[in-house]
Amino acid sequence: MTRIVLKFGGLAIASTDYIQEVAYKAIAEKKRGLDVVVVTAAMGRTTKELAKMARDISDNASKRELDVLFSTTSQVASALLAIAIQEAGYDVVSLTGWQAGVQTDAKHRNARIEDIDVTRIEKHFEQGQIVVVAGEQGIDDAQNITSLGKGGAETSAVAIAAAIHAERVDIFTNVDGVYTADPRHVPAAQKLKEISYDEMLELSNLGSHIIHPRAVELAKKFQMPVVIRSSMVDVAGTLLKEEVEMEKNLIVRGVAFESDIIRLTVGYDAYSDASLADIFAVLAENRINVDIIVQAIIDGLKPSVSFTILKEQFAEALHVLENSKLSLDFSFADFEVGLAKVSIIGSGMASNPGVAARMFNCLRRKGIPVKMVSTSEIKVSVVVAQDDMIHAANALHAEFNLAEALQV
Amino acid sequence: MTRIVLKFGGLAIASTDYIQEVAYKAIAEKKRGLDVVVVTAAMGRTTKELAKMARDISDNASKRELDVLFSTTSQVASALLAIAIQEAGYDVVSLTGWQAGVQTDAKHRNARIEDIDVTRIEKHFEQGQIVVVAGEQGIDDAQNITSLGKGGAETSAVAIAAAIHAERVDIFTNVDGVYTADPRHVPAAQKLKEISYDEMLELSNLGSHIIHPRAVELAKKFQMPVVIRSSMVDVAGTLLKEEVEMEKNLIVRGVAFESDIIRLTVGYDAYSDASLADIFAVLAENRINVDIIVQAIIDGLKPSVSFTILKEQFAEALHVLENSKLSLDFSFADFEVGLAKVSIIGSGMASNPGVAARMFNCLRRKGIPVKMVSTSEIKVSVVVAQDDMIHAANALHAEFNLAEALQV
Repeated sequence: MTRIVLKFGGLAIASTDYIQEVAYKAIAEKKRGLDVVVVTAAMGRTTKELAKMARDISDNASKRELDVLFSTTSQVASALLAIAIQEAGYDVVSLTGWQAGVQTDAKHRNARIEDIDVTRIEKHFEQGQIVVVAGEQGIDDAQNITSLGKGGAETSAVAIAAAIHAERVDIFTNVDGVYTADPRHVPAAQKLKEISYDEMLELSNLGSHIIHPRAVELAKKFQMPVVIRSSMVDVAGTLLKEEVEMEKNLIVRGVAFESDIIRLTVGYDAYSDASLADIFAVLAENRINVDIIVQAIIDGLKPSVSFTILKEQFAEALHVLENSKLSLDFSFADFEVGLAKVSIIGSGMASNPGVAARMFNCLRRKGIPVKMVSTSEIKVSVVVAQDDMIHAANALHAEFNLAEALQV
Repeated sequence: MTRIVLKFGGLAIASTDYIQEVAYKAIAEKKRGLDVVVVTAAMGRTTKELAKMARDISDNASKRELDVLFSTTSQVASALLAIAIQEAGYDVVSLTGWQAGVQTDAKHRNARIEDIDVTRIEKHFEQGQIVVVAGEQGIDDAQNITSLGKGGAETSAVAIAAAIHAERVDIFTNVDGVYTADPRHVPAAQKLKEISYDEMLELSNLGSHIIHPRAVELAKKFQMPVVIRSSMVDVAGTLLKEEVEMEKNLIVRGVAFESDIIRLTVGYDAYSDASLADIFAVLAENRINVDIIVQAIIDGLKPSVSFTILKEQFAEALHVLENSKLSLDFSFADFEVGLAKVSIIGSGMASNPGVAARMFNCLRRKGIPVKMVSTSEIKVSVVVAQDDMIHAANALHAEFNLAEALQV
C-alpha cells in the first residue's frame, strides 16, 4: 500500500483546536487509502516552560537528563493527536521514538539517527492504524532516550519515510512554500513550485529556516520527495526533488540571508596544517557548526583562519576554544559581531562563471562592503554588515530578475 | 550494599524549590553509604493541565493514549530531580518505567506490576549512581506504556524495593505519620510510632488516604518495612511492619472514615448463586472497587445484594451494570448517595468479641443510625449518613480511649 509521512511543527499543534485540524489532515490521507505516519514536534510553549524549570534548578543540567525532560513534549503532542484521530472515528496508535524503532547514537541533545527498525510501525499498518510518532527523539544502544536536536522532527519524518518506503513526506509549516527570497523582507519574492534537494540544502544552510538542512540531506540521500506546505491554508506548496528540469535555464533560483552571524578568527605564531585541521575537529566534536571558512597565508603576517558561527553557539565556541587553547596551540583569537550572510543559490550557476562577478558588482554599485566570501557549485555567499542585509537581498533579487522569472 | 527506596508524591515535588529539597534528602541517604532509588509521582498541577487538553479534544480518549499522555508527568519530575541531584554534585540517572524494568499487564490506566527486571538499576548502582525512577508507570508485553493507576507511585516504590532487596521504603507525604484518626477532624488523634501491615491495610482501605492499600499489600507480601513521613518537616514518621508486639494489649488502634460513599443495590426475581457471583466478577473485570457487601435472603422478599462503591466510580459502575443487564439477569438496581463509612481498626480485635457491640452501643447512644455493617478480623466498619461521619469518628475515638493510649 502507498505510504505517506506528515510532519507538523510546534505552531501547527500549538492548541487543541489546531491538533484537531491536524487530525483531519491525517484522516484525509487515510481516506485516500494510504498508510499514514504523522510525526509531531513539541507543542508550542511547553518546551519553554520545561526549560525554565530546568534552569531554575541548574545551569549545568546534563544533556542526558534534558533529553529525558524535553522528549516528553513531543510525546504529549503525539498522544493528544492520537486522541483527536480516535475522536474522529479512526483507529490510531501513538509511539514514542524508541517504540517507533528510532535508533540513534549517544550524542544527547543532538543525536544522529543510525537506523530505524520499522517492525512495529509495519504491524500497526497491518492493523489498519494511523501511526503517530513523537518526533525529535530516539534511543541509543544503552537504551537511553536521546533527542535529535535542531530539525529533529523533520529529520525523524524523512528517516521514517525512507525506512517504510513512503511515497512522500509533507512538512506542514508556518509558510506556504519556498520562495525566491524571504517575502517578509523582499517584497518581490515569488513562490517556487519545485526546487532541487541541492538548492534547498543551500537555501536551508543559508538562513532559510523552512526546513533543516539535515532533513534535506537525508531526503536527498534516499531520493525522498518532500513537500513544504502550510498548516494554515490549503494551497500547493513547494516540492523538493532531485531534478527540476524546466528550470535549468534559470541561473539563480533564490536569495537567502541570515542575521546574527559572528566571525571568529584564530591566529598562530607559525603555520601548521595539523593545528588548523585540529581546530575544526575540536569544534565539530562539540557540534559547533562552522560555516564560512577563510584562510589566508600572507608573507610577513602570522597565519590565521577566520570562520563564521551562529550567535547562539558563540558562548560555547569560545568555551571550547578556551578549554583547548593548549592542545590547539594558537596564539590569539578575536571576533566580530553584527554580521549577516547573503547568498544567491541556483544549480545553473556552475556553468555560468560570471555569476559571482555579477553579484559582487551589484553589491559594489549599492555601496555594500563584502567582508567574507564563500562559494560552492550552486551558491555564492557573502558576509556583510547586518545593517546592509535586507538592502543587499533586495538588490540581488532584482539583479537576477527573480521576480519576473517563470517560477514553475 | 544496603539499599533504600524513597518515594515523593506530587505535593513534595510541586515546584523546583521542593525538588531541590527532595534532592538533598536523596543525597543524605547516599552519604550514609546506601544505594538509593527515588521514585517520583507527577508534579503538582501538570496532570490536570494535560487532562484538560485531552478533554478539550475528546470525552472518550482511549486509555492507552491517556497512559502515553500522563506518563510524561512523572518522567518530567524524574528528569528535574536528577538535574537537581547533579547540581548538588552527585552522580545520578533518571529512568522511565520501562527503562527501570517495570513490567505490567496490559490494563491501561490501572495496570498491575507483573515483574521488575532490575538489571539496569543494578548496573547504575555499580556505577555509584543515585537512580531516579518515574513512578506510576511501566510497560506491557507488547511494549506499550502503561500506568498503574491510583497509588501507582507508592506501588512502584515498594515493588522496586522488593526487587532490589532494599532495607526500607520511605514514603514522603503531606502528613507526618499515621494517626489514630484524621487529626483534622478528630482533635484528640495521636500519631502512631508503628503499625502492622494489616492494620494499615484496613486503615488505607477505610479512607485514610496516606498510602494506597495496594502498596501496603505489596509491602506485606514482601515483608518490606515502610515508613510514612513528612516531606515538609523532619520528624519521625510511622513504621509499617509485620508485628507490632508492644501494642497487643491495645484493642483498637485507630478510627478511619471516608465520605462520598454510594450504596448500590441489585435485585433479582429469583435467587441464584451464579448470578450473584457474576455481578462481582463483571465489576472486578472493569476494575470497579466494591467495598462493603451485604446480602440478605429473606422469605417473601426478592433476593438482593447491596454494596458500596466510591462516588468517582459510580458513573462507570452504572454503565457496567447497564451493559451487563441481560447477561447478569437482574430485575432492578437502585442506589443511595450521601453516605460515609466509619471504621475502627486493631489487630487485638479478633480476640475481643465485644468490640463490635461496644461500637454499635456508642453510636446508638449518640443517635447515629447505622445503615450497613462489615467486619473483618481486625476492623469493624459501619455505613452512616455523611452528616454523621465526623460526630461518629470522634465518639468512637473517645469510646476506645485512643487519645490516652500510649502510642508506641
